Amino acid sequence: MKEKVIESQIVFQGRLLKVEVDKVELENGVISTREVVVHRGAVAILPILYSGDIVLVRQFRLPANKVLLEIPAGTLSPGEEPLECAKRELEEETGYRAGKWNKLVSLFLAPGYSTECIHIFCAEELTMGEKHADEDEVISSEIVPFSKALEMVFNNEIEDAKTACAILFYNALKERRDDYGL
Amino acid sequence: MKEKVIESQIVFQGRLLKVEVDKVELENGVISTREVVVHRGAVAILPILYSGDIVLVRQFRLPANKVLLEIPAGTLSPGEEPLECAKRELEEETGYRAGKWNKLVSLFLAPGYSTECIHIFCAEELTMGEKHADEDEVISSEIVPFSKALEMVFNNEIEDAKTACAILFYNALKERRDDYGL
Repeated sequence: MKEKVIESQIVFQGRLLKVEVDKVELENGVISTREVVVHRGAVAILPILYSGDIVLVRQFRLPANKVLLEIPAGTLSPGEEPLECAKRELEEETGYRAGKWNKLVSLFLAPGYSTECIHIFCAEELTMGEKHADEDEVISSEIVPFSKALEMVFNNEIEDAKTACAILFYNALKERRDDYGL
Repeated sequence: MKEKVIESQIVFQGRLLKVEVDKVELENGVISTREVVVHRGAVAILPILYSGDIVLVRQFRLPANKVLLEIPAGTLSPGEEPLECAKRELEEETGYRAGKWNKLVSLFLAPGYSTECIHIFCAEELTMGEKHADEDEVISSEIVPFSKALEMVFNNEIEDAKTACAILFYNALKERRDDYGL
């Protein structure tokens, strides 16, 4: 099924994104082009307080042209390990440090045109560290009961895919644990 | 919290994607730039057979450099209604037509840099129509028991975000319906 890249042209090289136009040959012999956004990859963190409440961040997202409520997240620095990045981003965006980290899942967000793979972690045993967001980020964090967050996924008040995934994933895991009496 | 766009420059105009570099002023007065991928938006469909099994599609995704198992999906044609697009894509990619459509949720896949919003539908009462994928798509569809698909989300065999979201969302809805005895 693999597509063979015959020709690859970089059409944009930015600070965050690189864009290529690739000429490909499909297994059926058809020649086509693919527009590919090359992204370093990212992490997202579902931070769970001892109370069971979760920590979400609110920020204006220009591409969505609105303020979105999301789990903390960020782009990998070159050569950075996902878990290290997750620890850094959690503290930068919320001020929290976590004593317990678990990887939930890794997902391609838009595999039709973006190479971005996001690694989603669950962070527990939270203690307050020091918040220091990047100077070009305006972010406010808020504490939300898990049941309310789940409700916000169902009524689509949460409009961010990684956030919906993380909340639904954790909820399903929780119900499994309950099923198994864990 | 809004960011004010001071300057916008189109750096790439492709067949599927447009890329802009926007100079923005944040509410704290900081000037920054945003690299934005402008996308027409998309739809994805969770097709559920009378048996309760679901229909997934397998295709090579160049940006992921691997074959991914996903729910059927596609990009909106200019001016196309999401539901119309969903009906078209479901039949193109799987051959199925659905008697019952429900909107599950609309999500921004990568709101940090992409304008893409994907509308996820649930399609039921499926009957076989006529499969006719685009000539530059090599897609094979397969029928998967819902419980297996859910398992594949948990063990990360499913690596596509919209697919994980749709399966987890539908599963949570199902459990709610069961809770309410519906």
